[in-house]
Amino acid sequence: MKRSFLNFLLLLFELILILEISAKSLRKSNKIEDLEMLYEKKRDILIQADEGRLAGGYLHLNRKELVVDRIIQKLKRDEIERGFKNHSQFAPALHFFKAKALIEKSELFKVMQMMPKGSALHLHNSAAVSSEWIIKNLTYREEVHYCQNKKGAILFTVTDFSKCKDAPRNIVQIRSMKTPEEVRIFDHWLESQINMRTDYPDFEYPDQDAVWKRFQTIFDTIEGLITYEPICRAYHKRLLEELYDDGVYYAEIRSSMKSLYDRFGLKHRSAKMLEEVINEFNYTHPDFVGAKVIYTMYRNFSTNMKKQKLDHFINLRKSHPKLVMGFDFVGQEDLNTLIELKQYLDQIPNGTKFFLHAGETNWWGMPTDLNLVDAILMNVTRIGHGYALLKHPTLLDIVMKRNIAIEVSVISNQVLNLVNDLRNHPAAIYLALNLPVVITNDDPTFWGARGLSYDFYLAFMAFSPANAGLKFLKQLALNSIKYSVLTKYERRRFEGIFERKWDEFLTQIVYRYRHIIHHNNAD
Amino acid sequence: MKRSFLNFLLLLFELILILEISAKSLRKSNKIEDLEMLYEKKRDILIQADEGRLAGGYLHLNRKELVVDRIIQKLKRDEIERGFKNHSQFAPALHFFKAKALIEKSELFKVMQMMPKGSALHLHNSAAVSSEWIIKNLTYREEVHYCQNKKGAILFTVTDFSKCKDAPRNIVQIRSMKTPEEVRIFDHWLESQINMRTDYPDFEYPDQDAVWKRFQTIFDTIEGLITYEPICRAYHKRLLEELYDDGVYYAEIRSSMKSLYDRFGLKHRSAKMLEEVINEFNYTHPDFVGAKVIYTMYRNFSTNMKKQKLDHFINLRKSHPKLVMGFDFVGQEDLNTLIELKQYLDQIPNGTKFFLHAGETNWWGMPTDLNLVDAILMNVTRIGHGYALLKHPTLLDIVMKRNIAIEVSVISNQVLNLVNDLRNHPAAIYLALNLPVVITNDDPTFWGARGLSYDFYLAFMAFSPANAGLKFLKQLALNSIKYSVLTKYERRRFEGIFERKWDEFLTQIVYRYRHIIHHNNAD
Repeated sequence: MKRSFLNFLLLLFELILILEISAKSLRKSNKIEDLEMLYEKKRDILIQADEGRLAGGYLHLNRKELVVDRIIQKLKRDEIERGFKNHSQFAPALHFFKAKALIEKSELFKVMQMMPKGSALHLHNSAAVSSEWIIKNLTYREEVHYCQNKKGAILFTVTDFSKCKDAPRNIVQIRSMKTPEEVRIFDHWLESQINMRTDYPDFEYPDQDAVWKRFQTIFDTIEGLITYEPICRAYHKRLLEELYDDGVYYAEIRSSMKSLYDRFGLKHRSAKMLEEVINEFNYTHPDFVGAKVIYTMYRNFSTNMKKQKLDHFINLRKSHPKLVMGFDFVGQEDLNTLIELKQYLDQIPNGTKFFLHAGETNWWGMPTDLNLVDAILMNVTRIGHGYALLKHPTLLDIVMKRNIAIEVSVISNQVLNLVNDLRNHPAAIYLALNLPVVITNDDPTFWGARGLSYDFYLAFMAFSPANAGLKFLKQLALNSIKYSVLTKYERRRFEGIFERKWDEFLTQIVYRYRHIIHHNNAD
Repeated sequence: MKRSFLNFLLLLFELILILEISAKSLRKSNKIEDLEMLYEKKRDILIQADEGRLAGGYLHLNRKELVVDRIIQKLKRDEIERGFKNHSQFAPALHFFKAKALIEKSELFKVMQMMPKGSALHLHNSAAVSSEWIIKNLTYREEVHYCQNKKGAILFTVTDFSKCKDAPRNIVQIRSMKTPEEVRIFDHWLESQINMRTDYPDFEYPDQDAVWKRFQTIFDTIEGLITYEPICRAYHKRLLEELYDDGVYYAEIRSSMKSLYDRFGLKHRSAKMLEEVINEFNYTHPDFVGAKVIYTMYRNFSTNMKKQKLDHFINLRKSHPKLVMGFDFVGQEDLNTLIELKQYLDQIPNGTKFFLHAGETNWWGMPTDLNLVDAILMNVTRIGHGYALLKHPTLLDIVMKRNIAIEVSVISNQVLNLVNDLRNHPAAIYLALNLPVVITNDDPTFWGARGLSYDFYLAFMAFSPANAGLKFLKQLALNSIKYSVLTKYERRRFEGIFERKWDEFLTQIVYRYRHIIHHNNAD
């Protein structure tokens, strides 16, 4: 960090010098060529100054990385040129539901999938696994039912039918009476209960209210499924697998740590189950770094419920201090603002880190926006979303000075109607200033994503200039490690694993795209 | 400016002091009330720090202004609350074609119309008058025809039929054969040739290419009409009238200063006609400050044509140095970038000010974006659009230091597909930092706007926090005067006129909304 600041000062100094010289020479000399040369020089310096300030601007690439950088820049340039000619082919400018198929065809997206991305730092456990896998696996277990609640929403459940309005129906039995084609349609319908995908997002979700309503409903739909202990176990194992397969080696998972139930109605503790799943996964995947929990409380609970949950959390902190290391509130931010919730945060014992949702809004000066002030005053470790931060220059100064990371959930912000064309997302500016941004995926189940690659791809295409390449991407990955909450030992281990994975990735890319290098060399 | 900086330093100092004290007292005292009080104090300071940095943050309001501020805040709060409950009622979040009717019903919009707004500094003369007036007046003159060009676009023309593919048809004659209802439909159709309005903007203009194509066509449609000398005269008189009636007392109009023709085929000079129209208008409106011309050259002209136009401009600068005071290029920015056009700018004699379009794009790192670098190196007086500026922190520093104004055309940027929800427009951030922003209207004909009030209303609702009021608006008006290119005498006169108009406005508002004041006092 110090070196980069020094570099920056040197660059600035050079800039001033050149501007000074130029002013003088303009007075003295009138030779056209001199003036042209000087102009070019000044132009380069201005462009380089911005490039230096960009995320990754001060990273140095080794030889192998430089080769990969060339490959990535070539792939990126091709996609940008295609998009520039035909805007409907440019994924970041489209709604994710339209862009998804386009992204999956992208060669650059394949690179993103292969690239080690570090940590997943803003991920809600009940929306973390791909919807396709949930339907194709969990709902094929013979104990799973569905029913409707009183609001008409579909609920998945196993033995707890207390919230059902109509008779619960066994899913496997329903399927057994259908033709294969009917099963396909039925499964598609089931998946649409936990995935917001639509071909007409502008019509189905014309505004934030409509989209949030749908969004909240899915949490109800899935709850009964993933609080059934055996399913919860399989689900969380899959959660780690999907991250691992996507090049993510560590996660800080937001979870409300609800009690689990089994077929006998007995209660199980989430924490114990999670620890076992993580340990098993570590055993089978020795290069996985681990996972921890950020405890989440629904901000709109009654006072009584909040007190109960707070006690629950404080007990968990004592019994599982390594697993449960942080705290956050969830639910629509403006329902109960941080200042109203401060009394609960004040009771949380020292040593707990806060990762508070704040400023996930376009309503400047309204309570959700002002949550940013409180999050910072409450000494937040990372800010969840922080979409509105740019409108608060003083807060931005503090975030920069204290190195508070901003968890940017790219697709989430678009699907939840904060921004349309992702190039208008404030994270582009955060990254132009090299603020501590981590790219996160929030609720991939709900939009049919998986892992971090979709968000990384969009961040790369929308939040960086056309000529930004591997440096930018590496900075994003490094940020995700740097702003993880790790012990010294964990950090050293993570860095070692990342270094190895990164080198393997470089080798893979060089091999896979050797034709590009040869072609470019032949130019 | 100096005072505001001092104020800011004092505020910062207070902030540091409080943070310091708070840290100490946190260690010493544990009294809950003390801590709560301290928290509130810190919170207020952080919020006030940002409010102080916002546009208008350092203005002081007199007693009358404070009353008007309360009225405006009340009207604004009502509209925000309505929008917050039902997002489809919040104009800045909608496309202007959907928002227009909503805006026209807004009480706050009426206040915007009454408010003196200063100058119009980015306005293309061929798209400056309301489309309705053009149809209802100019096309009712018996000499006006229309025809189709070879691309199928409708052209209005009087005697010059050289670009027509089919036979020109006299509009008055066509009308004479229609019933009143048919005339209404016909006029509506005629208006749709010079107004992009549609109920389905997402479908008709799915991307920037589609919208720019339509946009460029309208310039062809209207050209033959407003290059006919008698019509051009009436048109420009109306142009000044619409500004004046909207509380705009000075304009710097971008014009290509084409030769005008009359019914005998004789050529007339634009400059002479314009001078006469402005002088006449000044005579009938003694409190109008005036109008000047920024000469525009189409960036995609052939080299030969560019040389001719350059000579034309240089001659105009000599013959009408007061009228024609600036230079700019027009047309889609990426067709011919500033660095490619530098050779022409280099030939322009000293004393000409540049007002260059730059960075009207979302394509970071592409040529249009890099136009910002060149605009700054070419010592631009104001930047046209500068939409992409925020992605270039070094350029932003220079803009701040050199006090280069940014011409923000609110509706234009939305209609031309740069941004959807205006709250994501970078100008919100420019104004959070109190950069020298001027609100401009670009091409009001094309979207059915008139004057500056629509853009001002949207800027106020989208680019300021919920509690920003008259200070913010006054700063926008003052900016438009400050960043006008005026002689010392003109500036003094303008300031005098503005002061009077401003005071009249305050009186009108206090009277018109006296029920609000009484109601509020009764609370």
